[in-house]
Amino acid sequence: MRFSELTKDQLDAEVLADFTAMSTFGATPAGGVDREAMTSADVAQRQWFADWLTERGFTVELDRVGNQFGLLTWTPGAPYVLLGSHLDSQPLGGKFDGAYGVLAAAEAAWRLVRRHQEAGHTPKYNIAVVNWFNEEGSRFQPSMMGSSVYTGKMDADTALKTIDRTGVSVAEALEAGGALGTGEGPQAAAYAEIHIEQGRHLDEEGVTIGLVEATWAAQKYHLIVHGDQSHTGSTVIADRHDALLGAAHLVVTAREIAERFAPDMHTSVGQLVVLPNSPVVVAREARLHLDMRSPRPELVEQADAMLAERIAEIERLADVRIEKDTAHSWGLLPYDPRGVDLAREVAEELGLSHRRILTIAGHDSTNVKDIVPSVMLFVPSVDGISHNEHEFTRDEDLCAGVDLLTRVAERLLEGELDPSIDIGF
Amino acid sequence: MRFSELTKDQLDAEVLADFTAMSTFGATPAGGVDREAMTSADVAQRQWFADWLTERGFTVELDRVGNQFGLLTWTPGAPYVLLGSHLDSQPLGGKFDGAYGVLAAAEAAWRLVRRHQEAGHTPKYNIAVVNWFNEEGSRFQPSMMGSSVYTGKMDADTALKTIDRTGVSVAEALEAGGALGTGEGPQAAAYAEIHIEQGRHLDEEGVTIGLVEATWAAQKYHLIVHGDQSHTGSTVIADRHDALLGAAHLVVTAREIAERFAPDMHTSVGQLVVLPNSPVVVAREARLHLDMRSPRPELVEQADAMLAERIAEIERLADVRIEKDTAHSWGLLPYDPRGVDLAREVAEELGLSHRRILTIAGHDSTNVKDIVPSVMLFVPSVDGISHNEHEFTRDEDLCAGVDLLTRVAERLLEGELDPSIDIGF
Repeated sequence: MRFSELTKDQLDAEVLADFTAMSTFGATPAGGVDREAMTSADVAQRQWFADWLTERGFTVELDRVGNQFGLLTWTPGAPYVLLGSHLDSQPLGGKFDGAYGVLAAAEAAWRLVRRHQEAGHTPKYNIAVVNWFNEEGSRFQPSMMGSSVYTGKMDADTALKTIDRTGVSVAEALEAGGALGTGEGPQAAAYAEIHIEQGRHLDEEGVTIGLVEATWAAQKYHLIVHGDQSHTGSTVIADRHDALLGAAHLVVTAREIAERFAPDMHTSVGQLVVLPNSPVVVAREARLHLDMRSPRPELVEQADAMLAERIAEIERLADVRIEKDTAHSWGLLPYDPRGVDLAREVAEELGLSHRRILTIAGHDSTNVKDIVPSVMLFVPSVDGISHNEHEFTRDEDLCAGVDLLTRVAERLLEGELDPSIDIGF
Repeated sequence: MRFSELTKDQLDAEVLADFTAMSTFGATPAGGVDREAMTSADVAQRQWFADWLTERGFTVELDRVGNQFGLLTWTPGAPYVLLGSHLDSQPLGGKFDGAYGVLAAAEAAWRLVRRHQEAGHTPKYNIAVVNWFNEEGSRFQPSMMGSSVYTGKMDADTALKTIDRTGVSVAEALEAGGALGTGEGPQAAAYAEIHIEQGRHLDEEGVTIGLVEATWAAQKYHLIVHGDQSHTGSTVIADRHDALLGAAHLVVTAREIAERFAPDMHTSVGQLVVLPNSPVVVAREARLHLDMRSPRPELVEQADAMLAERIAEIERLADVRIEKDTAHSWGLLPYDPRGVDLAREVAEELGLSHRRILTIAGHDSTNVKDIVPSVMLFVPSVDGISHNEHEFTRDEDLCAGVDLLTRVAERLLEGELDPSIDIGF
C-alpha cells in the first residue's frame, strides 16, 4: 500500500504497536520500566531499536559516548534535522518518559521518508533519529550526559571515566553493551523533541500540546557533610559529629526553602549516601544532591542565600563541616521563539489544543537548543505523575504528538528555522 | 624457663607482641582496622588465632554459627570456664574493640594452663577461649549474633539465612571462610569478658578497671518510611510523598529526644537506606535503625511515647506512612553481683584502681550472663573514642586487664560463682 493511502487509524496503529513492543524492555509488574543506562534491559532495547531503524533503511551509527543515531541521507554532506529523546529510564520509572519521544521521532522520520520518496522530493536537509545516552543520570551522573557531550558542554573523556555506584565506568558499560562508537555524531541543522509533560498543567486543563518556551531556572548542589565515626550507643551526645544528622537537617532545609518561596520554588534531595551506614556507628560522612528550581531566577538567588545561612547553623547544630559545590546552575533558559511559533501553527493546522508552557525538568533539548534551533513539545501526563511506574499518557495524545512532530520536522527539513541573514544597514 | 619464673615485664611483653601481631589483620593507614565478619581480613585473623591456640596445646573447634573456641580440657566431661570477646570490627573501626578481649582471654588462659601444669593442679572446670562470630553486626544484622545463637536467644537457622547488603548469607560467608562448624559449642560453667570502655568515665577519672554492674536500658527500632516515587524537579510540593524527608525528620527527632532527656539518654540513627536513591527522583522508601539508650528505664518509656507522637506529626508533614517495629528492647540488665564483688577483690589484690560502671553498648556477655554467671570488665579508652580508627588504650592498661582477667578466671575455674545450693527451711 502506498504511504499516501494510509489512514490516520492505520498510522496510529503503527505508533501504538511499536510503543507496546518497546515497552516490554525492562517492564515491571506494576506497569512501568526499569531500564537504567546500559543495563541489560537498555542494551536489549537499543538492539531492538537498531533493528527497527535498519529494517526501514536507516543507517545506524554510534558516537564516542554511545549516542545512537538512525540516519536517512538524501543529500550526502548536508546536515541533518535531528529528532529524538532517550530510551533509558529511572529505576522503577514510567514507560513514557523519554521512550515515547524516541519512538515519536522514529515514526515521524519514517513517515517523512515514505512521503518524500513517493513524492520524489528531496528536502533541504537529511533526517536523523537519536537516542541520547544516559539522559536520566540515575546510574551515571550527571544526567543528560550524551547530549552534553554531543553539544560540547561536557568533555567526552570525563563522561567515559564516570563510574556508577559499583565502580563500573561509562566506557566499560558502553563497551560491554556494544554501544561504544567513534566520532561526534552527525552534524545537526535543527532539533525537535517531544516528551510527556512532567507536571499536570496540560492534563488539568485538557490541553493536548505544550509549546515549551523555556526551562525553569535551577541551581543544583553536591553537598558533603563531614562528621566523625563513633559508637552510636556510648558516645555522649556532646562528643558526636554526626554526618547523618547534618544531612537530615539539609533535607529538611530544602523543604523549608520550597515552602518559603511557594509556589514558585521546587526543591528536593533525591539521593543520600551515608558512610559507613552501619546501625551502630555514628556516620562519618554523608553526601547528597540538593536542587532548587523556579520560574523566577531571582528566587533561586534568594534561596541560595537562605541555604548558605542554614548551612552555617547546621554546622554548629550537628558539629559537622559541610562542603557545598554547585553542580549546575542556570537562569531561565528560553527556546527559540520562532520554533514555538512554528509548532503553534502546526498545532492549529491539525486542530490540536495547545498552550505555552515552561519545563521544570531538563531535557536533551536543553543542551541541543544551544547549538541549533530546537523545538520542544509536550503531551499530557495524567495527574502529572513522573519517574514512577504509574506514569500514564493516553493513546490519542501519543498519536497526536506524533502527527504534530511529523509536520514540525517536515518544515524543519526545508530550513524554516535557519538563521536569517543579517542584512545590516 | 619455668612459667613461675617469668617476670611481669616478660608476661606483658607477650601480651603486647601478640596484640601488635593481631592488629595487622585489616589494618588501615590511619591506625585502625577494617575487619567486618567473614571478610578476608577476618578470615585471615581467625586462622592466625587458630594457629596461636593450636601451638599452645588448645583444641580449636567451630560451632554451627562460626563461633571459634580454643579448648583446654583437664577433665573430660567437665564444663568450661569461657573467656572471650570478638575479633570482627566495624568498617574503619578501632583495633582494640573486641580483639583486645579475645587476646586477653587467650593470654589469661595460657597463663593458667602453664601455672596449673607446673603446679600439677587440676582445677574444677576446664578452660576455653572464644571468639564470638559477628558481634559488630555491621555486615550481618543483628549484632552479637554468635553469642545469641550460643545462648539460645536466636535460632541458628535464622542466623545462617541472614544476608548482607550484597545478598550473601551468613551460611555462605562462613562456608567460604572455612568457619562453618557443627554442634553447639562447649558447655559453659561461667564466663568472663574484658573490653575497652566505650565511653570516657575511666579515662577522665584516671581509673584502670571498670566493674560492669549492668547494661543501660535500650529500645531499638526498625523504621520504614513509605512514600511515592516521583520526579524531583517537576512534581509540585503538595503532590510529594517524600520518604527521604520523612526519614530526615526521624533523624532530627532522635536527636531532639536525646536533648529532651539529657544527659541520661543517648539516641542515634546510624543507618539509612533510601530507594531508589537517584538524584532526580523523590524517594519512594527509606529504612532506618533508630536506637535509644538510658540508665533509667522509665526515660526509655517516655522517649518511646515522644517518638510515637512525633511519628504521627511527621506522617502529616511529609505525607508519608511510617512503619515502626521494635527490633530489641530491654530494661536495665544487671550482671551477677557476686561477679562484680569477685572482680573488685581481685583488683584490690593487684593494686588496680577500680569503679563500678554501667555499659551502654551491648557485649557478648550481655547474652552469656543470662545462662551462666558472668563477669564483665572494662579498661580505659582514651577520650572514650569508639568505633573509630583513632580508638586508643595505653599498654599498661591492656596489661593490667590481662592480669586481672587471669586471676578472675583462676577463681572461676574453682567454681567460685557456682550457684549456691538453696537449703530451704
